[in-house]
Amino acid sequence: MSSLTLYTPAGVLAKSQPLKRAAKRLGQLGFEVEIDADALARHQRFAGDDATRLAALHRVAEAAPSVALASRGGYGLTRLLDQIDWALLARAVERGTRWVGHSDLTSLHLGLLAHTKLRSAEAFGLWAGPLACDDFGREEAEGGVDEITRDCFVEAMQGLLEAVGFRTEAGFDGLHARGTLWGGNLCVLNSLLGTPHFPKIKGGILFLEDVNEHPYRVERMLLQLAQAGVLQAQKAVVLGEFSAWKKSPLDRGYTLKSAIAAVRERCPGLLILTGLPFGHVPTKVCLPVGAKMDLVVQGREALMIWGPDPAHHQHAHDCDEACSHEAEHEAKRPSSR
Amino acid sequence: MSSLTLYTPAGVLAKSQPLKRAAKRLGQLGFEVEIDADALARHQRFAGDDATRLAALHRVAEAAPSVALASRGGYGLTRLLDQIDWALLARAVERGTRWVGHSDLTSLHLGLLAHTKLRSAEAFGLWAGPLACDDFGREEAEGGVDEITRDCFVEAMQGLLEAVGFRTEAGFDGLHARGTLWGGNLCVLNSLLGTPHFPKIKGGILFLEDVNEHPYRVERMLLQLAQAGVLQAQKAVVLGEFSAWKKSPLDRGYTLKSAIAAVRERCPGLLILTGLPFGHVPTKVCLPVGAKMDLVVQGREALMIWGPDPAHHQHAHDCDEACSHEAEHEAKRPSSR
Repeated sequence: MSSLTLYTPAGVLAKSQPLKRAAKRLGQLGFEVEIDADALARHQRFAGDDATRLAALHRVAEAAPSVALASRGGYGLTRLLDQIDWALLARAVERGTRWVGHSDLTSLHLGLLAHTKLRSAEAFGLWAGPLACDDFGREEAEGGVDEITRDCFVEAMQGLLEAVGFRTEAGFDGLHARGTLWGGNLCVLNSLLGTPHFPKIKGGILFLEDVNEHPYRVERMLLQLAQAGVLQAQKAVVLGEFSAWKKSPLDRGYTLKSAIAAVRERCPGLLILTGLPFGHVPTKVCLPVGAKMDLVVQGREALMIWGPDPAHHQHAHDCDEACSHEAEHEAKRPSSR
Repeated sequence: MSSLTLYTPAGVLAKSQPLKRAAKRLGQLGFEVEIDADALARHQRFAGDDATRLAALHRVAEAAPSVALASRGGYGLTRLLDQIDWALLARAVERGTRWVGHSDLTSLHLGLLAHTKLRSAEAFGLWAGPLACDDFGREEAEGGVDEITRDCFVEAMQGLLEAVGFRTEAGFDGLHARGTLWGGNLCVLNSLLGTPHFPKIKGGILFLEDVNEHPYRVERMLLQLAQAGVLQAQKAVVLGEFSAWKKSPLDRGYTLKSAIAAVRERCPGLLILTGLPFGHVPTKVCLPVGAKMDLVVQGREALMIWGPDPAHHQHAHDCDEACSHEAEHEAKRPSSR
């Protein structure tokens, strides 16, 4: 049975019920769940003051559970970045910990890539994935926990998930790119630009998502990454969901597609794929941040495959289906591989 | 009579009336107003496609009017930054042009500081100030054009404005700092971080404002500037208005003051003053971006004074009053100067 600690490094939990629901559900899935002592701490909009949250993060690292799952994101890790003991968090990974989450947790993942050797270690210790309350804490009336999110998470935490598949747009048939997977929330990632916490990764596969950001803001952030030379240094950019933004009467036909087109126009040769099931949406895959992976596309079927030996990968999670099928995974491999 | 060209480098003008009202009012103020041929162009949410807006910007630069006043901000200059002929815009300044605006225009000002010698030239060619439609295009029913905004603008464009005064918070009595004034919209400024368009200014006086940004986002942007080493390299940071943000039930007492306190805590020794009448609000002063200036505080009265010889400064604009008073200006100078 895997040990799993729930902790709250950023925004405050307004209620305790979602955390309790998440703990119960994760217990039913076979995890030995522990809730950090300060998971429900409150200080203004934060889950405790900075010292409390930093201590919680370090406490989790010292305990080194199999899974360190953040209860929610929000805003808060930015305040801690200069004080986090990155080596301590990396040592937890060496002892087997998987740091899981998305949104504000992007800065934890990217800070670890920037400050430690985790990138080259391929330790699979950083996972872009669910947040306890947002995903496992959802009420049944709201649809409960998404099955794909749940299954992907369980497989990933067992070390069994070795690929994810999704349907992308036409135009990438035959693509095969290999690089370090990195990324997360676009806004949080950009908030690290120019700071020591931004990892310098070249030849990578950069995945991005965001929420509540109008496409013009998404475009501005992507163009900043382009003007900073980050985008063009990647083998590919894979876009997840950009959700919950509101149209403006001034848009006059400008959409997220227009934003992506504008970025493509300015970065000739850069591959920007869409359709990754990841973001502030119920259905999200788990992705190993910092791992070397292969991105292969056949027709419109994209597959992200990681692990030391692609020939041994047998657990793909195809999000067009609810579970993984080895045969299907095999079938999706382009003949060129 | 000063020539003044209205042009639209970023967001589309939904209606033509505000531009017409602005042109009329500016004419009444004594400017010889010209409206650029594409000021009302439309392409999605932009005032014409990128080529159209870039051509308009370069056309204005070639004509080199006394005043190049943007009709509005919005989003759009980011798309042009890599293509702007910065030297052409700087030559216009040498010929006497003042580039005026705020919001998205921040990237034009900062790009000029990053790419040309305007910073050291002290040419007073870049002015953070009103936008034609937002300020001079306001309907009388909405209060019309703000008197301070109008008077500051007219004085600045005549070369007569040499200082602005405002009431800041307690704790800065006796302050005297000298440095290059730079800054503008926080979000736009941060969108340049890590790119070639971000000017590397040390020992400066950095002014910042924003609109529609929750304090936690303001804090995140300021902390990014701190983590990037930008804030600590400045003599002082002067905050304008942070307007039109909405409280969240999760704030639980967290406010803009909390955000500023958090930044101060992380940047010991850094002077962060508040109260600058500038931003997305009706009342805004004009500020010479790139100029060397003195920031002096006596009691809670702050004064920003620029120009080659502070002894000759006789036109302060005090925003606690509606017009400038030399005697008052004199009275405000700390005895140490």
